[in-house]
Amino acid sequence: MYSERIRLASLRDRIVDAAAAAALIEDGMTVGISGFGCAGDAKAVPFALAERAQHEPVRISLVTGASIGNGLDKLLAESGALARRMPFQADAALRKAINAGQVMFVDQHLSETVEQMRSHQLKRPDIAVIEAVAITEEGHIVPTASVGNSASLALFADQVIVEISLRYGTDLEGLHDIYIPADRPGRAPIPLVSPDQRIGTTAIPVDPARIAAIVISDYRDSPSTVQPADAETQAIADHLIGFFASEVEAGRLPRNLGPLQVGVGSIANAVMAGLIDAPFENLCMYSEVLQDSTFELFDAGKLDFASGSAIVLSAARGAQVFGDFARYKERLVLRPQEISNHPEVSRRLGIIGINTALEFDLYGNVNSTHVGGTRMMNGIGGSGDFARSAHTSIFVTKSIAKDGAISSVVPMVGHVDHTEHDVDILVTEQGLADLRGLAPRERARAIIDNCVHPDYRAALEDYFARACGRGGQTPHLLGEALSWHLNLEERGHMLATR
Amino acid sequence: MYSERIRLASLRDRIVDAAAAAALIEDGMTVGISGFGCAGDAKAVPFALAERAQHEPVRISLVTGASIGNGLDKLLAESGALARRMPFQADAALRKAINAGQVMFVDQHLSETVEQMRSHQLKRPDIAVIEAVAITEEGHIVPTASVGNSASLALFADQVIVEISLRYGTDLEGLHDIYIPADRPGRAPIPLVSPDQRIGTTAIPVDPARIAAIVISDYRDSPSTVQPADAETQAIADHLIGFFASEVEAGRLPRNLGPLQVGVGSIANAVMAGLIDAPFENLCMYSEVLQDSTFELFDAGKLDFASGSAIVLSAARGAQVFGDFARYKERLVLRPQEISNHPEVSRRLGIIGINTALEFDLYGNVNSTHVGGTRMMNGIGGSGDFARSAHTSIFVTKSIAKDGAISSVVPMVGHVDHTEHDVDILVTEQGLADLRGLAPRERARAIIDNCVHPDYRAALEDYFARACGRGGQTPHLLGEALSWHLNLEERGHMLATR
Repeated sequence: MYSERIRLASLRDRIVDAAAAAALIEDGMTVGISGFGCAGDAKAVPFALAERAQHEPVRISLVTGASIGNGLDKLLAESGALARRMPFQADAALRKAINAGQVMFVDQHLSETVEQMRSHQLKRPDIAVIEAVAITEEGHIVPTASVGNSASLALFADQVIVEISLRYGTDLEGLHDIYIPADRPGRAPIPLVSPDQRIGTTAIPVDPARIAAIVISDYRDSPSTVQPADAETQAIADHLIGFFASEVEAGRLPRNLGPLQVGVGSIANAVMAGLIDAPFENLCMYSEVLQDSTFELFDAGKLDFASGSAIVLSAARGAQVFGDFARYKERLVLRPQEISNHPEVSRRLGIIGINTALEFDLYGNVNSTHVGGTRMMNGIGGSGDFARSAHTSIFVTKSIAKDGAISSVVPMVGHVDHTEHDVDILVTEQGLADLRGLAPRERARAIIDNCVHPDYRAALEDYFARACGRGGQTPHLLGEALSWHLNLEERGHMLATR
Repeated sequence: MYSERIRLASLRDRIVDAAAAAALIEDGMTVGISGFGCAGDAKAVPFALAERAQHEPVRISLVTGASIGNGLDKLLAESGALARRMPFQADAALRKAINAGQVMFVDQHLSETVEQMRSHQLKRPDIAVIEAVAITEEGHIVPTASVGNSASLALFADQVIVEISLRYGTDLEGLHDIYIPADRPGRAPIPLVSPDQRIGTTAIPVDPARIAAIVISDYRDSPSTVQPADAETQAIADHLIGFFASEVEAGRLPRNLGPLQVGVGSIANAVMAGLIDAPFENLCMYSEVLQDSTFELFDAGKLDFASGSAIVLSAARGAQVFGDFARYKERLVLRPQEISNHPEVSRRLGIIGINTALEFDLYGNVNSTHVGGTRMMNGIGGSGDFARSAHTSIFVTKSIAKDGAISSVVPMVGHVDHTEHDVDILVTEQGLADLRGLAPRERARAIIDNCVHPDYRAALEDYFARACGRGGQTPHLLGEALSWHLNLEERGHMLATR
């Protein structure tokens, strides 16, 4: 049984059912599970754990790559199994528990979690649960549709549970490139100098003695729910492509733009899809999550290579890609998120980083995470890893939300995830503000002139003029700076005059 | 004349007086000058330029390494010669012009300025003015007490003016290590794997054809004005040394602590001086500015090696060090600030980064730059380069200022330079908050319990309790969050009850 999936024969007698594997997880443990952006998450064991938590007190610290699918965060949160959660999540029920202070959520730069475990500044997992397509002859683990933090979680854990997924073919083997930075001192440079380079192994080199259980799983990854482009996301894509064209024209970008990093979500996906009809060839990606648009660009002959940490697709695209994987495999690599997001590599390669803002302010500070300055949406994810070290750091958002009750361009953001130092270009459907080399007052001018929605322009202009009257490098009226957020909270609209 | 100082004989006829050299600088030009932390700044030509600007309209963009001494920023600002200034300054008169909106100040991560010039996203200098101890046989430039941005500014400029300083001996040659990252694509890893490693050349390899003028200068560097330790800075040092001892004990830090980075200023200097009597040996520094404390640690036999970008000393210490330079030279290297501050290197080496906060908030967000949220103090400097990529990111400040009218621990900072993601440890004279692996509500608890001054503890506790009543990952009362700053502005004290 499963001789192709578990090639080290001595491990085959460790196959157990999910409940038995989940029984290894004890109350108070730190548990690392595979999964990034709903791709490649362990499923059978977390389901069994949530089931058990219904009738037995078991509260864990859960560490993943990023978000996980199949409603697992919801089930675990609602069963009371989550005491702590890091470094990212994207689930409505868990979000509610986090904002109620019931689950302690440690929102981290996605490249940093395993680095902090490596230096013992963050607790290492007691148990890691990793989804795999196969275990090799050496007992090493071949991941499925994501690498995320799986490699280091497995290497640091006392015990490893492997979920062999029958939903992914063994033809995924060879897709992954596992490179782990050494302990300090004596760490060598990461040798990656090109997005298509392979620098590691194709499987996670765990000691098979630490594989405590193997579970055979038939669960699918949750499909992505990317929205099709609308008029606003199309306008954002158009502004950005116009900017790229002028940068190429001016000799500031190569004709293939250089390595592209694109955040998760509908706007970013629309921007990438916009490149299909743009005059750029031989594109390459050095990104985190590869979405539908990556494969549209492959099919259009525009994209040469894509490096990521996870492949997150809609149901239809997923069936097509994984049903005909040989067509794409040579042009893809999945890396640990520590490497896909590593500032060393981002800065060396000179990535163009395109990420989504929740809101930004007059001076270009960006809020990626907190609604109304207080309530967590998802988490900072990889945006900080990329924005700081990118060749050009770009943030995109629609200029208004909730039928215009919310302006995404505000006097002062209610929470700062990216400071003005790390934000080069801002784009809304209204236009693009190029902030490079500008002082704050000049940044404000560019943002008012190009990004804010017409319904809010006069109010923002008025705030800026009165703030400048008070002086300062970054003029503000402290008594009014957060008033738009307060108005929204108290009256349902950001403008008091409405 | 000057055959030892200008070893390429054909350059000796380019010696002119400062006014003639300054005449090469035209209205509207971008001018790069050497200088970092008041060390190694060009002086004769800027003085002559300021003089000329008194009676002739000449407005330039001035790019340096960091702050410059000898009142040059003041002279240039007051003569109206500065249209733009980047990436850092620390002068009261220039600060006033910046906050009045008269000089556009582009406050940048110090590792990024020349990177942005390299990719033509920031204008390259028309002219660079570089202080040097000598010009080599090849026509290459040997800097004085700082490297800063001098190398890339000289390499990118159309014309180079060299100020040969007679105040520094030629025995400084060999101190510097000039390494310049290549253009992208095809950039190699920075090969530095240890603080004491040399990876470049000892002089700046400019084409001598671009050396347009040479000026002989007898000006001195301004001495640093570090304050001696007081009871509060001593208490901060003690808390930090206790923390280091417990980290070594727990096996989380090596016995020599690993490479230390320490910001500029009296608190940071006191922390370093505190290491003289601490039980750690074979210390090493991978830092930006080397202050008096570096040489105190050398003399005490505690420090093995120090890598920096500038040597900034008090008058007495400067006379001693540069009068007996052979005593220290083999244990020192000065690098371009792009390399001393490079995130690739910081993260690889695993530096302990100790920087000064102006204020921090309940959740550990740090303001390093803006008084009252609006008025620029100096600039972010290298703190962001280090805090993001450090093994452990530490910020220090006294808990109160202005006789207690100001609390350095506030509900919400008026300006964010470092987000909670990049802040591991906070220290005031009250105590040390270890924020690693904590969620925001837990961070608040640690900060209230350990860092805030007793006069403000009840008010902060009250704010936190009421904010938690409103919920959220990062609980705040938006209508009150900035009220402490407003109180200070309107009533001269942060607490309304006073």
